[in-house]
Amino acid sequence: MSSVSRVLSGHPDVSAPMRDRVMAAVEELGYEPNLLAQMLRRGATQTVGFVVGDISNPLLAQIALGAEVALRAAGYAMLLTNSVNDAHLDATHIRLLQQRRVDGLLLSVSDETSQETAEALAKTTIPSVLIDRDLGTDGQQSAVLSDHAAGVTAAVERLVRLGHRRIALVAGSPHVRPTRERIAALEDVVEAHPGVFAQVRSGAFTEAHGGAATRELLGGRKPPTAIIAGGNQILVGVLGELAARKWRLPRDVSLITCDDVPLAKFFTPPLAMIGRDPYEMGSVAARLLLNRLGGGDPETVTMPTTFITGASCGAPRK
Amino acid sequence: MSSVSRVLSGHPDVSAPMRDRVMAAVEELGYEPNLLAQMLRRGATQTVGFVVGDISNPLLAQIALGAEVALRAAGYAMLLTNSVNDAHLDATHIRLLQQRRVDGLLLSVSDETSQETAEALAKTTIPSVLIDRDLGTDGQQSAVLSDHAAGVTAAVERLVRLGHRRIALVAGSPHVRPTRERIAALEDVVEAHPGVFAQVRSGAFTEAHGGAATRELLGGRKPPTAIIAGGNQILVGVLGELAARKWRLPRDVSLITCDDVPLAKFFTPPLAMIGRDPYEMGSVAARLLLNRLGGGDPETVTMPTTFITGASCGAPRK
Repeated sequence: MSSVSRVLSGHPDVSAPMRDRVMAAVEELGYEPNLLAQMLRRGATQTVGFVVGDISNPLLAQIALGAEVALRAAGYAMLLTNSVNDAHLDATHIRLLQQRRVDGLLLSVSDETSQETAEALAKTTIPSVLIDRDLGTDGQQSAVLSDHAAGVTAAVERLVRLGHRRIALVAGSPHVRPTRERIAALEDVVEAHPGVFAQVRSGAFTEAHGGAATRELLGGRKPPTAIIAGGNQILVGVLGELAARKWRLPRDVSLITCDDVPLAKFFTPPLAMIGRDPYEMGSVAARLLLNRLGGGDPETVTMPTTFITGASCGAPRK
Repeated sequence: MSSVSRVLSGHPDVSAPMRDRVMAAVEELGYEPNLLAQMLRRGATQTVGFVVGDISNPLLAQIALGAEVALRAAGYAMLLTNSVNDAHLDATHIRLLQQRRVDGLLLSVSDETSQETAEALAKTTIPSVLIDRDLGTDGQQSAVLSDHAAGVTAAVERLVRLGHRRIALVAGSPHVRPTRERIAALEDVVEAHPGVFAQVRSGAFTEAHGGAATRELLGGRKPPTAIIAGGNQILVGVLGELAARKWRLPRDVSLITCDDVPLAKFFTPPLAMIGRDPYEMGSVAARLLLNRLGGGDPETVTMPTTFITGASCGAPRK
């Protein structure tokens, strides 16, 4: 190892045959010499693991892309795992990435309350960054968070001004921070406006839950006049149920979606949305991890969400 | 190692203190005993690498999901890399996954013509499965392919019957199989119908290319009366340019998109599309790889594409 290190660092005290043998081996293994030298010197592998709850969610794919590009610029490769929203797989993947000797972890786990995930993390000393998750490790773990309250508050205030009195939130899993923050913000606004009521239906981040919850809400005794879809897979289910009833936006119900989807702005009518910048969240997560790998302290960065109004929001029917 | 193997396989010829020490070490490392026993027995790591060209494309996220679920059922974990459509990174990731000792590779590389990718693959003996890619390794490498010709042919025949004479394809990179197959199918149909012309603009699988190509086509001397968007990121660019011109579908131009996006069916008008089942493609790719890992021969499976008509296709303006 020390001969290899001397060759790669260009140390003068190396024989020519030794240099040739080392470089041939390095070439054979497909390593890049500078990277290998760094790895040997620091015991680092120059790779980062990203534990993703559900890669088929376009939001997470954009976060992964932002992180990948920023890590790559710093000489790191990223290995991504997908847990299919199963907390047991989050824990399995944390252990797997640890065995593969990643230098750092990005974590968008499926369930913050999982004992198994907490144990897997407790057993590792690898620096990690939470992505919009709260594992009760305040100050000990870096995190990039979204300020969901800002966007939801602006959206609900707008609905109240339009005259809505029953506002539904079809939300995803309550075991992750975004859902809890969105519910809390809705409840806070409603509490400040007597006569306005919140109807919350949390469940899975799926088209199926979006459809079933919308069906139940609209078929109920006191149907909401406005719906907030708490995620882009939930949105597909909400739209499916509205299409099945031949309901029009905003004539029959107003709709706001959380998290931008590229096609939403081309909708008829254009969909109002509570947006954020997932690519930038990925970049910031990468930067926080690189700071930690360079010996820096844990940091928390909170990023904005913005309500962008659209013609899918209107006054309720009298 | 052989003591470890004996402990894990429950061999009787192991002392109690040895068993305790091994199990403590296994626990400490976070390995699952059954998996570790299998790994030691077979020299396998029970992981598969998936080299993805662009994870922010929802099509690839669905393929990854289908592969992940099928591999998981067979006891394999999947490590995914994202090459941001850069062939150099495809090659880097193939080498990285090889160094991490994956048992098999799934390949959706960015550029089939890359010499560096070909060299990285030539240096490894890890079984691999191509996903809708052609590396000139017919019969030596398993592959799951889409029958793009079937869907494109049905779509273009429909446009010709509606009276279209200038049909544009805004395509992605010509260095991957789907683009070449789509172009070839369009040209074949046009050749069979004198007086019908194809206008092909290939480029990147991006919103930017979709917008620029549409702008150039519609601003040209002989604008097409129908456009086929060759991918779901290209579609966003095409729709953006149509919105900028305030053009309506299908009054001003007919539109067909390739590869389903969940929201397309809720469009006004609903978008006609050439669809395929990316989740199932991922499942089949996993099955082909598992066959290879079990000692089977390379196989090629071709899966259907289907033209689903929609109100975005109509007769051209007189």
